Amino acid sequence: MSALRLAPQLMTSGWLNAPDDFSIEALKGRVILIEAFQMLCPGCVSHGLPQAQRVASLFSPSDVAVIGLHTVFEHFEAQGSRVALQAFAHEYRLNFPIGMDEIGTDGAPKTMSAYAMQGTPTLVLIDRNGYRRLQRFGLIEDLNLGAAIQSLLDERMQNLDETSATATGSTQDGCALPLK
Amino acid sequence: MSALRLAPQLMTSGWLNAPDDFSIEALKGRVILIEAFQMLCPGCVSHGLPQAQRVASLFSPSDVAVIGLHTVFEHFEAQGSRVALQAFAHEYRLNFPIGMDEIGTDGAPKTMSAYAMQGTPTLVLIDRNGYRRLQRFGLIEDLNLGAAIQSLLDERMQNLDETSATATGSTQDGCALPLK
Amino acid sequence: MSALRLAPQLMTSGWLNAPDDFSIEALKGRVILIEAFQMLCPGCVSHGLPQAQRVASLFSPSDVAVIGLHTVFEHFEAQGSRVALQAFAHEYRLNFPIGMDEIGTDGAPKTMSAYAMQGTPTLVLIDRNGYRRLQRFGLIEDLNLGAAIQSLLDERMQNLDETSATATGSTQDGCALPLK
Amino acid sequence: MSALRLAPQLMTSGWLNAPDDFSIEALKGRVILIEAFQMLCPGCVSHGLPQAQRVASLFSPSDVAVIGLHTVFEHFEAQGSRVALQAFAHEYRLNFPIGMDEIGTDGAPKTMSAYAMQGTPTLVLIDRNGYRRLQRFGLIEDLNLGAAIQSLLDERMQNLDETSATATGSTQDGCALPLK
Repeated sequence: MSALRLAPQLMTSGWLNAPDDFSIEALKGRVILIEAFQMLCPGCVSHGLPQAQRVASLFSPSDVAVIGLHTVFEHFEAQGSRVALQAFAHEYRLNFPIGMDEIGTDGAPKTMSAYAMQGTPTLVLIDRNGYRRLQRFGLIEDLNLGAAIQSLLDERMQNLDETSATATGSTQDGCALPLK
Repeated sequence: MSALRLAPQLMTSGWLNAPDDFSIEALKGRVILIEAFQMLCPGCVSHGLPQAQRVASLFSPSDVAVIGLHTVFEHFEAQGSRVALQAFAHEYRLNFPIGMDEIGTDGAPKTMSAYAMQGTPTLVLIDRNGYRRLQRFGLIEDLNLGAAIQSLLDERMQNLDETSATATGSTQDGCALPLK
Repeated sequence: MSALRLAPQLMTSGWLNAPDDFSIEALKGRVILIEAFQMLCPGCVSHGLPQAQRVASLFSPSDVAVIGLHTVFEHFEAQGSRVALQAFAHEYRLNFPIGMDEIGTDGAPKTMSAYAMQGTPTLVLIDRNGYRRLQRFGLIEDLNLGAAIQSLLDERMQNLDETSATATGSTQDGCALPLK
Repeated sequence: MSALRLAPQLMTSGWLNAPDDFSIEALKGRVILIEAFQMLCPGCVSHGLPQAQRVASLFSPSDVAVIGLHTVFEHFEAQGSRVALQAFAHEYRLNFPIGMDEIGTDGAPKTMSAYAMQGTPTLVLIDRNGYRRLQRFGLIEDLNLGAAIQSLLDERMQNLDETSATATGSTQDGCALPLK
């Protein structure tokens, strides 16, 4: 019996740098890094996104797939449109696929809710078999992230022998969701 | 005979952190630093605006007035609205007055054109008497900026004895206007 | 048939932060990081040693043992004595064991020669079984280093199934040995 | 009646990058920056000396003379010799004149005592007329330092009209002298 949780599907209203029917299903077999961000979140701009770009450049794309997820939960008028995100991605030279998290009937981004993210930036690692293995709100050190990625790379598909899944609590340096 | 040029008026469609009839005329007697930026310009976010914030915190407001100027010349849909700028200023904790440069009939920001700015970020220093004394596109070292500000602070009003005005050429690290 | 090379013994004239009969033999079973440095090497002070300290603080000491190796190949009078190294280690708060590489009859540090190091800083990773698996002169990114360490941590003792040993060439940011 | 204090003479046992009879008397007419440091003081290596180098490169040498002063008050064996300082200056590419503060009969560096410095790094600014005008232990922001230098540059020789001399208190980021 395993405590591993399959990563929820990404529910998106569109994609940048990818076809609009893009799905992380197609990436199975690779380690997937999802960087959830908002374009007007300072911690995302200064830390989270540059770190995701470093991962994309330092690991082989056939090993690690880097995905952005735009989880807008505030300032909808300013950052909620596709054109705003396109301008941002263009200026910051973000080349990896970026999904636009679909807003639910409760006004919250659906994928963000499904993952129970606490704010932005949030980094998620999904293993070769589609299980969510690490989720971190705020900062994570490059040394630790490199180790976590490699740990998943060293696993074979369908050969999981332990449950190292962790959902790490809130830290500083992020835009937190308001408590309800 | 003087080569000094009076700083052109700021032509704005509105202000944040200041009344909408705000005018730098009211600041005469102080040294004025104008930081022209665009909210989606990476060099503005990483260098220009933090430097303006340092000036605002390290010099007395009665000596040096720091002003932002949002000179949108691209991505109008994404960054052209007041609500977008407000969200940005809120997230980045920009507390100084920020003018929204008025778009002219040619589609270019009027103040940016009047100052012949080459792109963003552009830093302008205006002396106690309203003369434009330094204009720099791209990066300027803190040591040099501190010296330039102090040089103007050391002048008395209407007691200028030399023309050190400089309009410095284009450098890297900025979003340049397209050449026409 | 294996291409793996057992890590050469450290030949030292003494140790700081450890008994003088300290040997990395005692660390077998752990991954070992050796940071070879000189106290007056700017790249060691600004990059190599802070990175070694980050590894020491972010990984469990029972998993990863961090060792310094003072490989003096120039400025012997200035940095060749134990008292000089002690002062340096004290001021920079280096708490891990630091071996003083023994000077050979040719005037070169013996361990540095045995490892064929090209200069300082040089980082070496040794696996749980005592095999040298990575050697890098100059800079290595934290993401890459974290991945390399984890890759060795994921191996069992005496259960090596591939030879990922790499001896990486010279880069910038280091004090290079003069070519002979 | 003036509160300005003439800067004490530098009492040195020798100089690097200058003749051994070098004296700051010869620099009268320029603004002088003295960076007092110890080669094994981390705050000097990471902050004080790089800042002095920036001043040396960003201001004209005919306006601002940058001088190092090696004020060894601890770890004499490690950093007290000329050869140790030479190796350090060579590796860190310090090209400005560096005086070796003479050790007094009480074991303390004479110039350091004459200036009542509290530790290293300490930065001193001397005006065109030889008066000590600013002394700071620990960090000083580049913006503030640039302003302080320019303020002295804007003064004429023997035309001082105010006493802005300040002896600033102790801060962090330095190696403090032990309290007695």
